[in-house]
Amino acid sequence: MAEHKNRPRVVIVGGGFGGLHAAQALRRAEVDVTLVDRSNYHLFQPLLYQVATGALSPANIASPLRSILRRQRNTVVLQAEATGFDLSGQRLLLADGQLPYDYLVVAAGATHSHFGHDEWEPLAPGLKTIDHATEIRARVLSAFERAERATDPDEQQRLLSFVIVGGGPTGVELAGALSELSRHTLRHEFRRVSPESARIHLVDAAPCVLSNYPQDLSDKARGFLERLDVTVHPHTLVTGITPHGVTLKRDDTETDLPAATVLWAAGVKASPLAKKLADAAGGETDRAGRISVNDDLSLPDFDNVLVIGDMARVLDDNDAPLPGVAPVAIQQGKYVARAIRNRIAGAVTKPFRYRDRGSMATVGRSAAVVDLGRFKFAGFFAWLCWLFLHLMLLVSFQNRILVLVQWMWSYVTHGRAARLITGRRPDAEQGADAAKPNGA
Amino acid sequence: MAEHKNRPRVVIVGGGFGGLHAAQALRRAEVDVTLVDRSNYHLFQPLLYQVATGALSPANIASPLRSILRRQRNTVVLQAEATGFDLSGQRLLLADGQLPYDYLVVAAGATHSHFGHDEWEPLAPGLKTIDHATEIRARVLSAFERAERATDPDEQQRLLSFVIVGGGPTGVELAGALSELSRHTLRHEFRRVSPESARIHLVDAAPCVLSNYPQDLSDKARGFLERLDVTVHPHTLVTGITPHGVTLKRDDTETDLPAATVLWAAGVKASPLAKKLADAAGGETDRAGRISVNDDLSLPDFDNVLVIGDMARVLDDNDAPLPGVAPVAIQQGKYVARAIRNRIAGAVTKPFRYRDRGSMATVGRSAAVVDLGRFKFAGFFAWLCWLFLHLMLLVSFQNRILVLVQWMWSYVTHGRAARLITGRRPDAEQGADAAKPNGA
Repeated sequence: MAEHKNRPRVVIVGGGFGGLHAAQALRRAEVDVTLVDRSNYHLFQPLLYQVATGALSPANIASPLRSILRRQRNTVVLQAEATGFDLSGQRLLLADGQLPYDYLVVAAGATHSHFGHDEWEPLAPGLKTIDHATEIRARVLSAFERAERATDPDEQQRLLSFVIVGGGPTGVELAGALSELSRHTLRHEFRRVSPESARIHLVDAAPCVLSNYPQDLSDKARGFLERLDVTVHPHTLVTGITPHGVTLKRDDTETDLPAATVLWAAGVKASPLAKKLADAAGGETDRAGRISVNDDLSLPDFDNVLVIGDMARVLDDNDAPLPGVAPVAIQQGKYVARAIRNRIAGAVTKPFRYRDRGSMATVGRSAAVVDLGRFKFAGFFAWLCWLFLHLMLLVSFQNRILVLVQWMWSYVTHGRAARLITGRRPDAEQGADAAKPNGA
Repeated sequence: MAEHKNRPRVVIVGGGFGGLHAAQALRRAEVDVTLVDRSNYHLFQPLLYQVATGALSPANIASPLRSILRRQRNTVVLQAEATGFDLSGQRLLLADGQLPYDYLVVAAGATHSHFGHDEWEPLAPGLKTIDHATEIRARVLSAFERAERATDPDEQQRLLSFVIVGGGPTGVELAGALSELSRHTLRHEFRRVSPESARIHLVDAAPCVLSNYPQDLSDKARGFLERLDVTVHPHTLVTGITPHGVTLKRDDTETDLPAATVLWAAGVKASPLAKKLADAAGGETDRAGRISVNDDLSLPDFDNVLVIGDMARVLDDNDAPLPGVAPVAIQQGKYVARAIRNRIAGAVTKPFRYRDRGSMATVGRSAAVVDLGRFKFAGFFAWLCWLFLHLMLLVSFQNRILVLVQWMWSYVTHGRAARLITGRRPDAEQGADAAKPNGA
């Protein structure tokens, strides 16, 4: 038993970037840490799009939380589903029990928001979990399989049309990978259709892709995408999604775009736990479902409850909310660990300040954009930086080797090692229009 | 388009060892080949137990059929479900269409047989597909997770009890891998339970494990298992399976063994397509669901229909049916390809004869038994032979590298890279008795 009777109990909800770094930063603290997650692994979400497009296996980017924290003797990992909060009783409520705490760190992350259209969810899956990624992988690969069996040219073209909603980093990376998949990986594998004839559409309401990046990098990214034959639809809204395709709206004109596969890379909203926490604390959530916190990331009336990562609404110097990216969550996780240690020692902690070290996004093979604030660059060298950084950020050394082998292999052969259609459930078919029977 | 108007059409059902080797052996034949499989990949089943126990990722042992056959221009791969046969019309019936053929090769393999107890299927999953393997992996890992949260010692022990039904190669390999997982991989990762206290039971009605092997190798295998703390129950029948455990019967005495995880490695039966084919041909199937064929593997009244692999009942020189193993299917696949080529050329083909080159099974890390007929050996060298052979048999070169890296890593660190609980469906929980709430 790792628990000590008199040590403060720190309960952390969520084993993503924020929760995991908070737990790790409490390694030497005189506390008993319990990390609760409904999955048994920490997921390296920035590479999830590579699982969705068959370049990597799920386990390459997911490490068991127990394994990461095995040497940290003051920490217990529990696989459980947090369902609510008893803040005055200092208990975290679980689907099948509860956990008392002295300090609570809530880091449950974000999920998709289909802008109020819940009916779009099954038609346009988002990319947040391993199960999402394998589902998207199955849909993408099945679309090519069904195209090979289709006899009607219109239906073939519909099956080979892919729409990605959202031109942020995830949307851009997905579009680049889908282009690579159809133009190169699958090139010689079909007999009746040409995978190269696949159309990839990237739709965003903003005037450009990567709209959070400086204009010149955003333009570069668009150039890279067009070189990859991706059709970028700026200034465009998605007003309808059906099993047959999407309805796009630009300048008050609506057009139907037939497409069998629609992927959602647009809005996210905080985990529903944020709303429950706000209700329990008498606070409020913003439009993105995030909960407002003090400048030390604690809840206004419960200073032993700390909220970090995608769930927390924290403003930068320009009063804009910090973005939902890994570096924010990591810095906040480390910060709350320090704040807890200080609190126990009777010391004060300065307010949290995010130190923006820059951001990067990749566009297909051998191109990326990197924004380090003072330095901005794009192209092949940016891509090498992206590769190196992401390889180093992977938690497990073995996974670094496995990912490196697969990346090198893909670079040389255009192959993708993990192109499996698995785990299909009957209700997962994208609509009613299965491939037409094929008589020869 | 690869099809030629006047060339004979060969349709192959199933992309396992038999079907794939038949297709590959027709590479240079003047025929149009269509390979139909409901999955998009060829699965290397002998290593499936390593996926089920978290040592390898699914994609490491599964290669897309299209990718394997990409350079074979006379071959089309279709992902489709075969549902029946119109033998006089020479058409294979699909769930959504049909395919005319001149020659039909049926190689749809085998599935589990729970000895008439269909109600055991959800309680004791077998190991034939990727989805089975990830489901078993999730059950095994979840049992440890639930044990960590359980408070009742009896319930903890039940959660840490694993029963494997069937002492053939799959059962022995699973038992060895589970022992390695609990004794080594998970050793330092839990705080409230000791994974080392897990009990692994291997149950078989036969007097020994690996009962198809020579007695001395079978004894050796049992010795290896006992060294790994696996409890072997010979002469024992399973008479009941519930969510709480199993009922074992030996010498007319029944005992209940509480166990949260039960795995099925016992009977197999031929794919239901064998029965449909027998009905269509006016033939019969044996107790294992296999269909009797001529000595050239054709159906008695339809000599253009060839049945191979686990679906075919073929007798050896002692009038015993050939076992359902990969080498039989591979030799039969190559044989029917040759028979078809001969038939087209007007030549005769000698009856099929299986050339038994031996068999091997591994027991945990660093022990295996190898039976080459004249040469028999067991232990570390046998294990090295096993490793090398299985590595070489993998279809894709990249997968050989990835598997080698993971095996070397596991050997040195006892780690297992792919320990993910994914794709759980609500109905997949092993029964009604979830872990007890845990108050601290």
